[in-house]
Amino acid sequence: MSDFAKHRQDSAALLAVIGFIIITILSVWKLKQFKYRLVHETGGAMFYGMVLGAMVRLWSGWTEDSGGGCSCVGLNSSQTNQGSPLVSTLLKETFDPEVLFNLFLPPIIFHGAYTLNQKRFIGNLGSVVTFAFLGTVITCVIIGACVYGFTRLMVLLGQAADGDFPLTDCLLFGAIMSATDPVSVLGLFSELRVEPDLYALLFGESVLNDAVAIVLTHAITTYSHMGGGHTFDTPAFFLSVGYFVAVFAGSLLLGFIFTVITALLTKFTRLCESPLLETSLFFLLSWSSFLSAEASGLSGIVAVLFCGLSQARYTIHNLSSESKTRTKQLFEFFNFLGEIFIFSYMGFVLLTFPHHVFKALFIVGAFLAIFISRACNIYPLSFLLNLGRTTKIPRTIQHFMMFAGLRGAVAFALAVRDTSTEVRRTILTTTLLLVGVTIWLLGSATGPVLRWLDIRVGVDADENPEDLPFDQVATGRPDTTLGLWHRLDYKYLKPVLTHSGPPLTGSLPLCCGLLARLFSSPRACEDQEQLQDTEAGGASCELERAETLQGDTGSNSEPEHQEDLLEGDLGLGTSPAQAVEA
Amino acid sequence: MSDFAKHRQDSAALLAVIGFIIITILSVWKLKQFKYRLVHETGGAMFYGMVLGAMVRLWSGWTEDSGGGCSCVGLNSSQTNQGSPLVSTLLKETFDPEVLFNLFLPPIIFHGAYTLNQKRFIGNLGSVVTFAFLGTVITCVIIGACVYGFTRLMVLLGQAADGDFPLTDCLLFGAIMSATDPVSVLGLFSELRVEPDLYALLFGESVLNDAVAIVLTHAITTYSHMGGGHTFDTPAFFLSVGYFVAVFAGSLLLGFIFTVITALLTKFTRLCESPLLETSLFFLLSWSSFLSAEASGLSGIVAVLFCGLSQARYTIHNLSSESKTRTKQLFEFFNFLGEIFIFSYMGFVLLTFPHHVFKALFIVGAFLAIFISRACNIYPLSFLLNLGRTTKIPRTIQHFMMFAGLRGAVAFALAVRDTSTEVRRTILTTTLLLVGVTIWLLGSATGPVLRWLDIRVGVDADENPEDLPFDQVATGRPDTTLGLWHRLDYKYLKPVLTHSGPPLTGSLPLCCGLLARLFSSPRACEDQEQLQDTEAGGASCELERAETLQGDTGSNSEPEHQEDLLEGDLGLGTSPAQAVEA
Repeated sequence: MSDFAKHRQDSAALLAVIGFIIITILSVWKLKQFKYRLVHETGGAMFYGMVLGAMVRLWSGWTEDSGGGCSCVGLNSSQTNQGSPLVSTLLKETFDPEVLFNLFLPPIIFHGAYTLNQKRFIGNLGSVVTFAFLGTVITCVIIGACVYGFTRLMVLLGQAADGDFPLTDCLLFGAIMSATDPVSVLGLFSELRVEPDLYALLFGESVLNDAVAIVLTHAITTYSHMGGGHTFDTPAFFLSVGYFVAVFAGSLLLGFIFTVITALLTKFTRLCESPLLETSLFFLLSWSSFLSAEASGLSGIVAVLFCGLSQARYTIHNLSSESKTRTKQLFEFFNFLGEIFIFSYMGFVLLTFPHHVFKALFIVGAFLAIFISRACNIYPLSFLLNLGRTTKIPRTIQHFMMFAGLRGAVAFALAVRDTSTEVRRTILTTTLLLVGVTIWLLGSATGPVLRWLDIRVGVDADENPEDLPFDQVATGRPDTTLGLWHRLDYKYLKPVLTHSGPPLTGSLPLCCGLLARLFSSPRACEDQEQLQDTEAGGASCELERAETLQGDTGSNSEPEHQEDLLEGDLGLGTSPAQAVEA
Repeated sequence: MSDFAKHRQDSAALLAVIGFIIITILSVWKLKQFKYRLVHETGGAMFYGMVLGAMVRLWSGWTEDSGGGCSCVGLNSSQTNQGSPLVSTLLKETFDPEVLFNLFLPPIIFHGAYTLNQKRFIGNLGSVVTFAFLGTVITCVIIGACVYGFTRLMVLLGQAADGDFPLTDCLLFGAIMSATDPVSVLGLFSELRVEPDLYALLFGESVLNDAVAIVLTHAITTYSHMGGGHTFDTPAFFLSVGYFVAVFAGSLLLGFIFTVITALLTKFTRLCESPLLETSLFFLLSWSSFLSAEASGLSGIVAVLFCGLSQARYTIHNLSSESKTRTKQLFEFFNFLGEIFIFSYMGFVLLTFPHHVFKALFIVGAFLAIFISRACNIYPLSFLLNLGRTTKIPRTIQHFMMFAGLRGAVAFALAVRDTSTEVRRTILTTTLLLVGVTIWLLGSATGPVLRWLDIRVGVDADENPEDLPFDQVATGRPDTTLGLWHRLDYKYLKPVLTHSGPPLTGSLPLCCGLLARLFSSPRACEDQEQLQDTEAGGASCELERAETLQGDTGSNSEPEHQEDLLEGDLGLGTSPAQAVEA
């Protein structure tokens, strides 16, 4: 095929995709108009993806008479393409899972982290981290064990050979399925305005557990590549645990480094005079965190996640108000299109992937496993956390969290990256089915379940939590978090990276005086100088103004400080619990 | 190389590029802080691109001892790569000229068209179209002739063989170089706030002539592919003229069709309630105009240009005010990054392209040709246009337009698409040099030249022309434009596509009554019904309110109508000229 003809076909394929995205947007929006809030964009997108897939199947079945069905998507370059070369080339180029992982997923993850309600997230940090780390590991292990049990059953029933499904592959499936999806439930949440704490818990958990699931998947892959598979291999196990910790910490650090660069750039320059430049730099530096992690063999998604979290905590305070809006809108835009694209793609792959492996028992086992594992994650951890929390996680919310274990983009992206073996193809097929069923069934049931559990919706107060007076936020503070982190955050990071927080000259030791002056906010310095000037001149009204200025700077950070330092444990039972069951 | 290693290298390459873009943004912005307005982002980007290119050259010279210099960029897949396979693969994947043409150029062109000052553009439409069509053809022919003369001289001096540079290739070079670049001069223009008419003329010309140059280039390529080259081939000539007209008209139509779809969607739905959806649909539909043109073998750039122009004329009035801002900011963002990327890429290619062909006489001839052709374009056409314009194009502005013939992204993109033959490589090398020199020399001289020519800068009045009262715009109206187009625009297109304009029931013949009612603005219908209701009820205060509403709807369009219909010729001398030399 000539370059020109190829280009025309690529354009046509892309046009078809865009056409379907447009139809998805319009139809889901139209459904919402009729108050059918049940169907989220993601569910609709997946449906239309399946329609497109069905059309492609029909078309390729029609254009070629050679039997054996359609083989369209070049999900793995090593796979042989038996079907229409035209369709396969066309789609192989247009829909590459790597494109999905490198182009569409990062903005989605960044957007999730960047738009997280900071106050509520910090307030629930202990619980969120517990659910995300401990919970994900529990989920992974239980799904793995459960599915392994079912594969043994398959062996007994003669549906699989002994050794077809080693434990590591079952654990891998567990790791892939342990990433819950923030998209569909949360989209409905913000529409229904659910209780902010439930929102923060679920959103925080689903954002963070993506990171854990991704690194866990890589760690298990590392383990199984090292030869472990049928017997337990102690060195390989510790090496993969080390790998997990190193990749996680390294990616976290890289993400944070790029936040530091962005924050210092926006703090010490007058870039805020040009929102376009500021937005562009913010975008490029955040993207760099992803690329640098990928380039150094770490996890780009984890880096971009922590970059998003820290950008929202520090850099955003240095941006001009127009840039704040612009950056949020920009990522909202990328997130929206990326989500629709990924879910359409899932639907499409579900119908066109030529090497689906449907193992009924494996699928049944997986369905059971995700519910059992979710229960073993939420209820025991909630019980443990409630020992330490001032505001308990009520039963209804626990039930709802149990229910909201949808799977989505990250699980799919992890499953689709490697389809070289039969087991991996079984995993992809099962993942796709699980994603589809949880998105459609659980996603549509969210509204009724919320009503049935009698969870408060239409909560208006937290629409813009930054405007809330301190008391309101502080009294609602449900969780207790690590004091060390808060001292670091408030005494050092905030003053270095933003214009708020106490002066560095006070918090740093005397020997670091130069450093303290260097990193002090120019605004704070100006205020200080202004104060000195007016003192020298003795103009009392000027002095008052300067004090007001200083007061203003302080008041930005003081409430947060008080809030942050209110309690100082990890939310695991070290502080006296108050019996405030909601 | 394994997939994983390749992925890491791709990420590293992309990271390096982003690093350079960040450095470009920061340094040019810093220069501006020191009031060095001379250097535009584009010039800076090209410089840093050259730095990156030099570094890659040094690095690949250092890593391999095999002589023959560096061969890094896979600009043409048919080319043999003699240099480091690592560097070449890396860059071939990351910087593909097709990516440039299909990903970065369309948003730049769209942004140019979308942000064009509509009132001023329409006011100067006759002149802009004349400059863009007639002027571009003149430029192309004169550059072609001039360069052909120099190639004959090269043959005489023994620097080239007879037949190395056929006339069609010289004309092709003329077509490539006839695209002037709106970027660098206009960036400075909006900062210095130059007279709005000069701005509209130059901007309009440079936006439209890109389209003409692109189609002209394709038409000439078609002609030379048909065997014409040394002797004049009449059927091939007419066929390529036909090709030119068909591609131009087809692309224009496609661009307009997608505007119609967007406008009708935004007019007849309540999408404006969700700015995110509205912005996404706007973006996707505009992009579709590009893709559909490319898929059907037409020119995507021309389609997206006319889509941008018509979106700004019609659809934008249906958008919510937030979406208006969002769409503009979104394209501004893509435009900014795209420009910096393309110009960096140019600088990079200038130093790393392995098959540069420097022909001194060709380059000298090209430099002379672009100035001669610009003079033969601007002065005679201005003279002709001034015969018909009510406000003449003054001498100073003509001199400035003569001076502002910079070359940029489109010329480069056209030259880089095909480097298979020696002639095409000569063209690429010469184009790169011309772009660099015009951007740096002419671009930097813009400020001084404006002062020297005593052209008014710091004009505040037109900052937001839509807010101006009608009189101010109308009295400053310098050009006269086609009456037929205006009747079409005002009586049919505006009422069908937007909420403004006179009711369709009045302008369409009686037999189209159903059609008229179908396409009438729902808002207008509501007003009408309200009016009837209140007449029936006899409530006089309600009646007044409804009348006010109707008056509001009318007042949106009436002034424009008056303005548009003020004069009714093409600006070519058919209306009585008033001697108003500015």
